[in-house]
Amino acid sequence: MISKPAIDAERIRKAVQSGKAADAESGGLRYVRFVHDFEDIARGTVIFDEGTVYGYPAIGRLLALRTGLAKQLSGPFWMEEKIDGFNIRVTRIQSSPIALTRGGYVCPFTTDRLPDLLDTAIFDDQPDLVLCAEVAGPDNPYIESAPPFISEDVRLFVFDLMRRNNPRFLSQDEKMELIRRHALPSVEIFGRFETSDIKPISDILKQLDEEGREGAVFKEDSPRQRRTKHVTGSANLSDIRTSVYSLLDLSPEYFTSRILRLALFVDEQELEGFDDLNRRAGAAFLDGLQEAIRQHRREGRVSHRFRCRFRDPENARRLIKYLKRASGHVQVVQRELKPEGGFWLLEFDRIYPSLNGLLSDWLAGKVVFD
Amino acid sequence: MISKPAIDAERIRKAVQSGKAADAESGGLRYVRFVHDFEDIARGTVIFDEGTVYGYPAIGRLLALRTGLAKQLSGPFWMEEKIDGFNIRVTRIQSSPIALTRGGYVCPFTTDRLPDLLDTAIFDDQPDLVLCAEVAGPDNPYIESAPPFISEDVRLFVFDLMRRNNPRFLSQDEKMELIRRHALPSVEIFGRFETSDIKPISDILKQLDEEGREGAVFKEDSPRQRRTKHVTGSANLSDIRTSVYSLLDLSPEYFTSRILRLALFVDEQELEGFDDLNRRAGAAFLDGLQEAIRQHRREGRVSHRFRCRFRDPENARRLIKYLKRASGHVQVVQRELKPEGGFWLLEFDRIYPSLNGLLSDWLAGKVVFD
Repeated sequence: MISKPAIDAERIRKAVQSGKAADAESGGLRYVRFVHDFEDIARGTVIFDEGTVYGYPAIGRLLALRTGLAKQLSGPFWMEEKIDGFNIRVTRIQSSPIALTRGGYVCPFTTDRLPDLLDTAIFDDQPDLVLCAEVAGPDNPYIESAPPFISEDVRLFVFDLMRRNNPRFLSQDEKMELIRRHALPSVEIFGRFETSDIKPISDILKQLDEEGREGAVFKEDSPRQRRTKHVTGSANLSDIRTSVYSLLDLSPEYFTSRILRLALFVDEQELEGFDDLNRRAGAAFLDGLQEAIRQHRREGRVSHRFRCRFRDPENARRLIKYLKRASGHVQVVQRELKPEGGFWLLEFDRIYPSLNGLLSDWLAGKVVFD
Repeated sequence: MISKPAIDAERIRKAVQSGKAADAESGGLRYVRFVHDFEDIARGTVIFDEGTVYGYPAIGRLLALRTGLAKQLSGPFWMEEKIDGFNIRVTRIQSSPIALTRGGYVCPFTTDRLPDLLDTAIFDDQPDLVLCAEVAGPDNPYIESAPPFISEDVRLFVFDLMRRNNPRFLSQDEKMELIRRHALPSVEIFGRFETSDIKPISDILKQLDEEGREGAVFKEDSPRQRRTKHVTGSANLSDIRTSVYSLLDLSPEYFTSRILRLALFVDEQELEGFDDLNRRAGAAFLDGLQEAIRQHRREGRVSHRFRCRFRDPENARRLIKYLKRASGHVQVVQRELKPEGGFWLLEFDRIYPSLNGLLSDWLAGKVVFD
């Protein structure tokens, strides 16, 4: 079934001319990618000959749960788990399922592994379906953190469904029915609540926090499909812990905002055991930095090893090429690509020039004036 | 003894014209103040009719002690305590001792309290002397932190001596002799070391760290008067703890640099008891923020109460005027000025608009997109 793109050629031309969209190519597949929001078209929207896959919209973050839910949502809403991974949209183009990153690139890693992550036969039944999903696990090429309940490789969790040429989500009922019928791996759906249900919602969040899970997304069960999200204290600590290597490469607000969010979560959920919490917060900053300092003394530089598995080694090469282009001044260096356990195991390092430069200067005895 | 200014009128004119210096006035006393470094003249240099009081130079900070001392200093050096307070230069102008801030303003608070802080009769013997000192204690108008060994009010600690019209310091021998002869309150002088004396120097720093003291300044015992400084892990924690109210007003690097310095101190000094250290690091961030959140819920805003004592209430009014001008967008609000225990007790609040705005938005349920 081939449908026309929902965005006409004239708008695409305007978007490309103004730098909001650009031509892209992956493994011979050509498409137009929206690099930024353009009019009502979200960043990450991708236009293929088969039609348009709309970008996954940004979801606002609630810092205070009680007042926030009441202010942002009206009527009943669904509460679902927010998974600590990376956002992917899966669709079938030219009879092959592909996975698009949030920014609208074909992800060579996820696309390669799709047969391991879900039963792609769903596209025989629903050829224009777009699965919005989180891919998460310790062996992923993008982020250092992973949900505590995934001990190796990665898993995929569907949390929304769309159809090509339509920026709207399928309703919760349709989504749950398709998930059930096709046994799609999905995020945990905690239930349908009202804004007055603060107690059960808080209890779930506290439980997620204790288990080191990231948080929840709240989806209004209404035609306007309004969404908002809230993360646990643990998630903020995990963000800090896994990003201290990039301490100087990320915006410094990255850390201050997370510590502030953590303080708000602790306050609102009336968490106890401050000593333990303080210890975890301190460790989130210090453990990684001390390991970085030791690594710098030992190896002369600070890097982080990533590993992930591929079916086709060509996709591993594509991923490295993509990462090198996308990583800014963080260096990506391939270490290993070898067959292992039925897959091709790729290992690569991310090297952090800013932290390296600073530690080199400091450890060499330079002074700073402040 | 009236001497000519060491900086001629033409240079002063050039500095004023280029915005590097400006006319200033305090209690009828007129002077020129160097707002920025200008040629070889340090920021904070002040020109009176009686002569020039040179600015106290910036001292570079060592992040790694062992390599740093060897790189920055040669030959023997003195190690002295670095006190957690504010930098002041005291001299006698028009037969009255005055205290100048680092930036070159007459400090209405310290000037008022000089008779309580030292025996100003030293200026009868040494009329052109300039005492470089730290004023520290819980009841000061500028900073929230204080050395652990000062339980109330403030104390003054001389750490260098200069003479008017000369940017150089008196030698360590001359300084120690004048301190002794006039019983000046001074910082603790730990001794004279070589760069190879890492063990005793580290032992002193570890001791300072355990006692919650700030750190040390190392002063080369040579004509070039080279100096460098190093602070303890405790000092970094104290900086974080006392500045979380300004989390959004200070540069975010303020926090990341301190946590990195702390990690380096812990690594280099091979400190043990990570659990305790992590707990203290977490508490440094979280205790203050949680108190800020509670205060915001209770009073609708976040502020910090400062108190200090004056001999003359007019100086308290001058201080408030000065702080209001100097505090940028942090608001200064006077709360109380009343006689107490032989002094005038001033109480005022600093109100932090950025943290207030953010907490108001967040607690009201607004969302952020990131």
